Amino acid sequence: MLWSGWGDPAKARDLPPKVHELLRDLLGVRDPAAPAASLESVRLAPVALSPAHLEALAGVVGRERVLTSHEARIQHTRGKSTPDLLRMRAGDGSDAPDAVVLPGSHDEVVTLLGLCASERIAVVPFGGGTSVVGGLAADRSGFTGVVALDLSRFDRLVAVDAESMVVTIGPGLRAPDAERLLGEHGLTLGHFPQSYEFATLGGFAAARSSGQASAGYGRFDDMVVGLTVATPTGTLDLGRAPKSAAGPDLRQLVLGSEGVFGIITSLRLRVRRVPEERMYEGWRFASFQEGTAALRALAQDGPLPTVLRLSDETETMIGPGRAETAGSGGPGCLMIAGYEGPAGTPQAMAKDTGDALARMGGVPLGAEPGRAWEHGRFSAPYLRDSLLAAGATVETLETAGFWSGLPRLYDAVRLALHGALGSPLVMCHVSHVYETGASLYFTVVTAQRGDPLEQWERAKEAVNTAIVEAGGTISHHHGVGRDHRAAYARELGPVGVEVLRAVKERLDPQGILNPGVLIP
Amino acid sequence: MLWSGWGDPAKARDLPPKVHELLRDLLGVRDPAAPAASLESVRLAPVALSPAHLEALAGVVGRERVLTSHEARIQHTRGKSTPDLLRMRAGDGSDAPDAVVLPGSHDEVVTLLGLCASERIAVVPFGGGTSVVGGLAADRSGFTGVVALDLSRFDRLVAVDAESMVVTIGPGLRAPDAERLLGEHGLTLGHFPQSYEFATLGGFAAARSSGQASAGYGRFDDMVVGLTVATPTGTLDLGRAPKSAAGPDLRQLVLGSEGVFGIITSLRLRVRRVPEERMYEGWRFASFQEGTAALRALAQDGPLPTVLRLSDETETMIGPGRAETAGSGGPGCLMIAGYEGPAGTPQAMAKDTGDALARMGGVPLGAEPGRAWEHGRFSAPYLRDSLLAAGATVETLETAGFWSGLPRLYDAVRLALHGALGSPLVMCHVSHVYETGASLYFTVVTAQRGDPLEQWERAKEAVNTAIVEAGGTISHHHGVGRDHRAAYARELGPVGVEVLRAVKERLDPQGILNPGVLIP
Repeated sequence: MLWSGWGDPAKARDLPPKVHELLRDLLGVRDPAAPAASLESVRLAPVALSPAHLEALAGVVGRERVLTSHEARIQHTRGKSTPDLLRMRAGDGSDAPDAVVLPGSHDEVVTLLGLCASERIAVVPFGGGTSVVGGLAADRSGFTGVVALDLSRFDRLVAVDAESMVVTIGPGLRAPDAERLLGEHGLTLGHFPQSYEFATLGGFAAARSSGQASAGYGRFDDMVVGLTVATPTGTLDLGRAPKSAAGPDLRQLVLGSEGVFGIITSLRLRVRRVPEERMYEGWRFASFQEGTAALRALAQDGPLPTVLRLSDETETMIGPGRAETAGSGGPGCLMIAGYEGPAGTPQAMAKDTGDALARMGGVPLGAEPGRAWEHGRFSAPYLRDSLLAAGATVETLETAGFWSGLPRLYDAVRLALHGALGSPLVMCHVSHVYETGASLYFTVVTAQRGDPLEQWERAKEAVNTAIVEAGGTISHHHGVGRDHRAAYARELGPVGVEVLRAVKERLDPQGILNPGVLIP
Repeated sequence: MLWSGWGDPAKARDLPPKVHELLRDLLGVRDPAAPAASLESVRLAPVALSPAHLEALAGVVGRERVLTSHEARIQHTRGKSTPDLLRMRAGDGSDAPDAVVLPGSHDEVVTLLGLCASERIAVVPFGGGTSVVGGLAADRSGFTGVVALDLSRFDRLVAVDAESMVVTIGPGLRAPDAERLLGEHGLTLGHFPQSYEFATLGGFAAARSSGQASAGYGRFDDMVVGLTVATPTGTLDLGRAPKSAAGPDLRQLVLGSEGVFGIITSLRLRVRRVPEERMYEGWRFASFQEGTAALRALAQDGPLPTVLRLSDETETMIGPGRAETAGSGGPGCLMIAGYEGPAGTPQAMAKDTGDALARMGGVPLGAEPGRAWEHGRFSAPYLRDSLLAAGATVETLETAGFWSGLPRLYDAVRLALHGALGSPLVMCHVSHVYETGASLYFTVVTAQRGDPLEQWERAKEAVNTAIVEAGGTISHHHGVGRDHRAAYARELGPVGVEVLRAVKERLDPQGILNPGVLIP
């Protein structure tokens, strides 16, 4: 992973000339941004932990697994939000951990937490480092120092229960590695968020990830049937059955807890058989409203494709697939529908879905938009670094609500962004559907004006307020981190906040776990 | 509801002579039980609350809504487990509340909780009174008195959001009344547990109920998209979207909390359209193992019927439908499959499912076993009172686990019951299926020996231990109450228990809500 941006540096993409034109003509982008800092020039504070502390950490995991090098610290600094990238481009390494520790077992994690609690060392669990909500930037005030607890050694497929279709698997596995290991057994999670190439299973669980094929495979929190969690107070081992009436479902308290209650050291996940066939196709609807009504009908009355998403007019015009829709009677809105399953079933699903979509005014665009979407499904973040360099800020944000509230939510977010940024480019798609509602995923592009970080943070605050006031949730699948904490407090209300604090104080009395994240 | 037993007294059923024979010949039941106490003869302690307390309660809800009559107190005493019935038959009213209060609004509940907290009055939320796990028997030690907070006035369908397929509805509504109100809008919850005739929606939520059509409609906890909860610390209002990544899902902390964290005063529920057609049919499998494998295949690979259940050999022989299976080549195991949906779809579902079942060795038994099941789906509890009177103890219990662990769980429960009760009749069915596992629902009949309450409690303790040790959950849909509390503590582990205690202490610092229930 590129330390200062997204993804594999070999896949970095230059902006096509047409995009440069668009930035200039549409957004008024004039000058490129200041050049990004080099790795060497990033400013890091000296390691705050004493040699005795580092020695004690090494006593748990071994000396070669306590890293304090410039590069290791920077590689574990923050996540991959646009503000994170802007800070790194500016050479600001102020959120770097003092050390990176790499435990290899649950017991080592328990021991580390005990040590860090008694020495008041903050602990930031680190998986793929792909947070886009400030989930990895600990508030170090009051602590001796900060360690990143890197889970990459939790990388095994521990057990396959083919009868129950449940696997026991390490939370430090990156998604592609997990898919490769599962694929050897003919199994898949079917979980493909945009962060797929780098994110880890533990991160998916801790942040309630949702993948692009969630209509068919469910959200990641639907897949977690059990988990083991190391907390400073001891070990939680949850999940004896798919569902239970034995009290509250405490799995659902750990899912989404973003490392503030404990560190997930083992996951039991529901798996599916690898689909024998996959088909993705495009449909055009005259308007976002009409397309959304069609999504809703599929979610409520079926048939429900494996992948289902709908771009609004702007995203349809600018995003991939625009040529195809333009050629079919005006831009309208592009819907992608995907079907996965045993041989023959995707065709049947496509037929049933197509009949329903055509009845609702959809125009079939064939396989090409589906192929274009599949080809680019993980590539958008790569473009961001080039846009930042060109002097444009691009960021994504998302929310969810019930169907009847979506138009208000859609308008509120767009209005807030326009109000804060002048005339940004705001694109939106419905990324996930449910019987009772859906998520809205926005991509914003704006010309950098003044300090781009301050510029974006003002816009972000306006959007967060707008989402809360329009009744939406502050995040459908990115999480809370530090960036959504204030809005989350409003969403939860004071009594909800107290519930979180009570659990936090009981499990982590010294407050060492990811301080500053999630809990208001 | 019959104060001393189950259901509408008009529907009480005498035991057929054949059942008397069976009890005598199979179980050695000789003498009928001692006659049950009359309502008047049930022993109640004097009302422990002072006139000033009663006056204060009346100040919140009105004088006519604070009941202290002999009958009102007995009608709100305990739930409907067999031990509850045995105690009532013996004239033991020791768990009766001192008063019954009937608030009519969220604000009244908040005020009541404040009053009760400051006066140390324990509060037992009371919906349908159908708990079978001791969920309504507060531990009054340390309290001034106990009130039953009857939610029957929360009986309105408040709002219908037909676009989102979400309704806002009162938790005090009994299920049939809720279905009637929803039916006027062409909607249904599709939630039909055996307690359907009497249980309330709030009880379904608080105890994580699961209905007989859960394969098609989901569990009740799947239906709750939002809820409002009055706690002694204030109000929780949860659920802004179907799903969210904004932290832990606190809805799932309230669901299953059995009134110990707060009182649910409003529910937002996902609804479905009333099915135009319903079809139920029977299938025979040679063995429980073979039938379970077929259930698993349907749950994992589809098609999944709306209703799906499988009786073991003993239940197939003794229970309804036995004549039909016997006539088709030996008893084997009876499976009920049900299909509900728009006109035409049940037939198509039945065809697809039937093809799959036939491939897996199933023998079709036609519609008659389905009709018999449908006819008797809520009637089993009525028989219990007659059996108790005849000198036989009958009780049900249930658990769930992952598919690969079910055989061990099945054997462990049966072994424990046989060890504790000599030669009881133990029947079992798989009542709910998931991709990764299923529930096992047991019905036990035994001759009463000595004190039937002690006899059953010994057996129950043995079963609880067996379930925990075999890796199952202590309840799939009955809940924890007081009866499962010790086993639940083992299932959760000490850190899990601390999580519950932390939430409890924060939301209910005086511990007035349902003391003794759920939390170990």
